[in-house]
Amino acid sequence: MAFTFQINNQVKFNHNQSLLNKAAALTLKLKSTVVKPVAIVEPVKDSSKLNETGMKKIDDITNLDKHQLKRDDRVILDFGNHYVGHFKINIRHIGSPQDAPLALKIKFAETPAEFAFNSADYDGWLSKSWIQEETIHIDQLPVELNLPRRYAFRYVELKVIDTSPKWSAIFSDPELTALSSADWNNYQPVKLSDHELQSIYDVSVKTLYDCMQEVFEDGPKRDRRLWLGDLHLQALANYATFQNNVLVKRCLYLFGGMSAKDGRIAANVFTNGDPQPDDTFLLDYGLFFISTLDDYVTASNDLATLRDLYPIAKKQVEVALNCVHDGIYEPDDDYPVFVDWSNEFDKTTAGQAIIIYALKQFIHLAQQLNHDDDINKVQPILDEMVDHSINDLYDTKHHLFVSGSNHEFNVASQVWMVLAGVVSDENAKQIMSSMKKELFPITGIATPYMYHHVAAAFFKAGLKDDGIELLKDYWGKMIKLGADTYWEAFEPENTNYSPYGSPIVSSYCHAWGCTPAFLIKKYLLN
Amino acid sequence: MAFTFQINNQVKFNHNQSLLNKAAALTLKLKSTVVKPVAIVEPVKDSSKLNETGMKKIDDITNLDKHQLKRDDRVILDFGNHYVGHFKINIRHIGSPQDAPLALKIKFAETPAEFAFNSADYDGWLSKSWIQEETIHIDQLPVELNLPRRYAFRYVELKVIDTSPKWSAIFSDPELTALSSADWNNYQPVKLSDHELQSIYDVSVKTLYDCMQEVFEDGPKRDRRLWLGDLHLQALANYATFQNNVLVKRCLYLFGGMSAKDGRIAANVFTNGDPQPDDTFLLDYGLFFISTLDDYVTASNDLATLRDLYPIAKKQVEVALNCVHDGIYEPDDDYPVFVDWSNEFDKTTAGQAIIIYALKQFIHLAQQLNHDDDINKVQPILDEMVDHSINDLYDTKHHLFVSGSNHEFNVASQVWMVLAGVVSDENAKQIMSSMKKELFPITGIATPYMYHHVAAAFFKAGLKDDGIELLKDYWGKMIKLGADTYWEAFEPENTNYSPYGSPIVSSYCHAWGCTPAFLIKKYLLN
Repeated sequence: MAFTFQINNQVKFNHNQSLLNKAAALTLKLKSTVVKPVAIVEPVKDSSKLNETGMKKIDDITNLDKHQLKRDDRVILDFGNHYVGHFKINIRHIGSPQDAPLALKIKFAETPAEFAFNSADYDGWLSKSWIQEETIHIDQLPVELNLPRRYAFRYVELKVIDTSPKWSAIFSDPELTALSSADWNNYQPVKLSDHELQSIYDVSVKTLYDCMQEVFEDGPKRDRRLWLGDLHLQALANYATFQNNVLVKRCLYLFGGMSAKDGRIAANVFTNGDPQPDDTFLLDYGLFFISTLDDYVTASNDLATLRDLYPIAKKQVEVALNCVHDGIYEPDDDYPVFVDWSNEFDKTTAGQAIIIYALKQFIHLAQQLNHDDDINKVQPILDEMVDHSINDLYDTKHHLFVSGSNHEFNVASQVWMVLAGVVSDENAKQIMSSMKKELFPITGIATPYMYHHVAAAFFKAGLKDDGIELLKDYWGKMIKLGADTYWEAFEPENTNYSPYGSPIVSSYCHAWGCTPAFLIKKYLLN
Repeated sequence: MAFTFQINNQVKFNHNQSLLNKAAALTLKLKSTVVKPVAIVEPVKDSSKLNETGMKKIDDITNLDKHQLKRDDRVILDFGNHYVGHFKINIRHIGSPQDAPLALKIKFAETPAEFAFNSADYDGWLSKSWIQEETIHIDQLPVELNLPRRYAFRYVELKVIDTSPKWSAIFSDPELTALSSADWNNYQPVKLSDHELQSIYDVSVKTLYDCMQEVFEDGPKRDRRLWLGDLHLQALANYATFQNNVLVKRCLYLFGGMSAKDGRIAANVFTNGDPQPDDTFLLDYGLFFISTLDDYVTASNDLATLRDLYPIAKKQVEVALNCVHDGIYEPDDDYPVFVDWSNEFDKTTAGQAIIIYALKQFIHLAQQLNHDDDINKVQPILDEMVDHSINDLYDTKHHLFVSGSNHEFNVASQVWMVLAGVVSDENAKQIMSSMKKELFPITGIATPYMYHHVAAAFFKAGLKDDGIELLKDYWGKMIKLGADTYWEAFEPENTNYSPYGSPIVSSYCHAWGCTPAFLIKKYLLN
């Protein structure tokens, strides 16, 4: 599996201040919740858990201040679940007067797996700066230590680098202030008779909750930014749960306010400080601006926002259609289609389907504003693309779409053609069944993002049982391996896989895993 | 050479709030000076320097912001001299948007030698927390980074742990705000025809300057506290230079305000936060309260302070005399005499001499307050001690004092008997000459503290040339090895010696090395 950074730092952007001001005005005050740890724990070998690492309680949390720590001693606090927020703790000393600073390493971990690796050994390509570890010197004890940065974690390791031979450090009153822009008061829990599905549902809601900050973040531990592909899914999960539609609206304005001079929307934006677009462009992510806007208008009926952002949506159609000739999507390296992290399969047919998917939503938006000119321009291209798909890309013998010059069968092509509604309901069922028969079990796909689309396609095709099976085999398996929130990357056939070679920089609460609540609510509860 | 921590944390202290309030009222506002670095440097192999490490300029400081740093890149800034204070720098980034925190290691070093060692390899008994190194994550650039802690340094290494593959860090406008309670406006420079002595003088003044903070610190990098043995010498150097007598007075009140229930003054106090005595007790350090008070009253004529602190001084005599019977000092493990770090020589005779030295000063104090009762009580004991010294400890054949049951000849015994004025001027000259002939070159002594007393004894005995020779062989040799300020520990016969096994925790600006200015002014310029 390959993933390469795009570097396009020569690209110039438009900053539409009117749209950005609206985004700024929509900034929400985060809700904070004080959480106390539940136990003192130590990692243990456990072959049933991620990276063969589980956690064992070694002491009651009420005994924390009985632990006197000197050089190389540590305690690990367990907060009982995954949270995003700020950490504080009181530290004092016992013994002789404090004749040296306290040097302390504080490591925040989302999973026990992160304790199986030494941070210093990490030498992967992803920045080491994401490792959630601080080294601190405290010249004067006692202190209430309030760390200024935000972390995503369940576990906190307090490791004393050194005191002095004359005294020990004592920790007390650890506390985390958990943050989210989601509000549990707006959330209606669901009751599912299937306990496994219930857990899958609940963990997806917690994943979404922890990623909902001042924007929909992709991962609160790492990346911490607003990606369009993730936003598209998070917004759907949000309508099914917390219904914080203002946050979706804010994110849409952020993307809308900063497009490149050629009209393309960046695949993600940074909102730490003044909003800034990344210099990364992905065809499908650009089109998901249309999808997210269409879903938002459906959920909110907010036509004023649609009027503001329609020109941006229209521009995404125009730039995407630069890659379409005679109804055929022709991949362009300067504006690649993502579909999934994996570059081990041909993405042409999936790309073709995603364009169709988005054009339909664009027409839906244009209809609401009566932009008949736009509809008249786009509809023939859409028809041509659908015709090409059915006539040239569909293998009637196998009931599968082919992709690329080698006529490759792959999962993504089937899934996106079904999601794009290119085929009849009956045909969709046939395609998805063929796909399961021919191409399952899925291998080489590590993202909940792609797995979501597979599950969604099963449900859309009416294959409810296959959808449930996939929910259990993928999201359910993460839970069995110890997940409190869903992970950025998970390969069921290779459970310890990390795209970065070490769990220390992996994100174990990642937005694109949050969709089971949406799928279950839409297809199993309605 | 052995040095063991005392741990007496069961000892109870009196806090005399009236004396401590006076100390608090004497707290001085530190003077600050803004200093800019002079060059970008890299360590080089240089056999003429400490730990075979010198520094080479590799770029003009004006080119700092031309350096674009990524993972594992570094620049080292040279501020041109040793300073104590706070560091700040501006950091921005270049390239794509900042898609990850900046992780940065900042190492502060007093000497190039510290770059020859990796901090992670240090595993000595002294606390690792003294290593002047910070690891920092910066979530949002640009930033003006103001480090809150104080450091002692000439060099600052900025080492990028990581940026991301998409951007580099750029540093600009580094600045240090140097602190001291000494004032160059009160300082009269001296002109010496001997250039080597001039350097020795000037470096001692800089050493003193950097150690003069809210108290006379022993080392601004490490320990950072007020020791009585160091204060005794710093105060003498201060009278010869900056004449900040208020600072001496404040330190005397701090010691006077916190004695143990049995009357002993702690060997050092902590003043980071509420003043607190250390649980370390040394007979000679306790007695130097008397010496420092006597010197202070001589320098200031401040009889009010003498009246306040006389009872404390008197108590030090009483507790010291618990170790004296029939004029003979009998060492007590619970109240050891320090004399020097080395425990490789017998300290009994040096201890005997130090008590004599202090009793004489105590009588001088008592005279000024007309405490005849006290004089009448102490004078006979003093006489007995002098008699015992001359009659039983002086080897008339070798013209040397013996020490301990093995009748050992050592440097410390001769030096302290001369400084205590136990023998006539002529005899002192004979003893110091014998000592030089029999016991030089000195080996196994690593402290400027002991070397100071040797040089002082040469000068007191009228052996000016020997005094100058020692100044050049000891303090002059540190300068040749690269010293900007005098070091905590230096063995001329073993130049790379560190008591801690690594220069990373050694203190290279240490108060007890600051006395050449005092010695030169007193014996060579008057």
